[in-house]
Amino acid sequence: MEQQDRLIILVAGMPGSGKSMLSSVAREMGIPVYVMGDVIREEARRRGLEPTPSNLNMVARLLREEYGPAVVAERVAEKLARDTSRVVLVDGVRSLVEIEVFQRLGRVVIVAVHASPRTRFERLRRRGRPGDPVSWEEFRQRDMTELGFSLGSVIALADYMLVNEGTADEFRENARRLLERLIAGRG
Amino acid sequence: MEQQDRLIILVAGMPGSGKSMLSSVAREMGIPVYVMGDVIREEARRRGLEPTPSNLNMVARLLREEYGPAVVAERVAEKLARDTSRVVLVDGVRSLVEIEVFQRLGRVVIVAVHASPRTRFERLRRRGRPGDPVSWEEFRQRDMTELGFSLGSVIALADYMLVNEGTADEFRENARRLLERLIAGRG
Repeated sequence: MEQQDRLIILVAGMPGSGKSMLSSVAREMGIPVYVMGDVIREEARRRGLEPTPSNLNMVARLLREEYGPAVVAERVAEKLARDTSRVVLVDGVRSLVEIEVFQRLGRVVIVAVHASPRTRFERLRRRGRPGDPVSWEEFRQRDMTELGFSLGSVIALADYMLVNEGTADEFRENARRLLERLIAGRG
Repeated sequence: MEQQDRLIILVAGMPGSGKSMLSSVAREMGIPVYVMGDVIREEARRRGLEPTPSNLNMVARLLREEYGPAVVAERVAEKLARDTSRVVLVDGVRSLVEIEVFQRLGRVVIVAVHASPRTRFERLRRRGRPGDPVSWEEFRQRDMTELGFSLGSVIALADYMLVNEGTADEFRENARRLLERLIAGRG
């Protein structure tokens, strides 16, 4: 496949903004989804570590120290090389160096998902995944960690901004419409 | 006036996103608008410098070196102290330390204005203010300078995201509706 024929949809958003909802809409539409965090989980398994939040944080830090700031994107890129789909989606891009990795593999479109801190905090509390914050202080701390990877710059430079302040159905509908537009090449 | 009675609407956005359109809607609604960049222009005048883009950049850098990273917000804060309006808007907030300055003066709401790089580039080219980029490379360079002040983090943490990809009238209407909601305390 020619590089310029491939569309790589990069999704960025703060914790609780709704990235995984967008990914699930993409999967329903038959778009292969690569989750950046899965690279960390695989590496933890390889090192024989339980996927607890603190272990995953440690593995993410070690990986970057050993292989550089773009390591997670590079590992996803290896997977993309074995995928012949014309359109793929990568969930959880965090930095400009990661974006550069994907730009070498195809035409990149950045989609940011945004919700206010208040909305995201309430969602994460309801979700209650292991590692999700239970207090506002913990939530702010996690936001700051995410922003340390220059996630804010990725969001600021997004080609599309999906605002997720309404119902899940509204968001899924907006997500589907955007993905259809991108697939049709009207993006 | 009690601090908690004052609403300070902080506006952040990349160059060409439409911040000044939001400010002009606010002025029409009778909301006093303070433009962060005016502090730099005043300081340039005080130092006897023409307000050319390179002089303004230099003055901004010198000011921060001399008085710290929050100096522009602190100077706007001095003006706010002489303003008794219940609602004010500050245009052009760039960093989290600036936000902290305003949080000491009232209830802060962050509004981000977003447009895609492509849309912003086209707008800035049409606008053609002195200092506006003429090439894509210059535009990207200016974006990177702005993001260096952690503007991306402010955008990522916005309480409200106004997307400005449609017509000017649509944007003005959305801006007016949001400001009305904030003024009415339904923010």
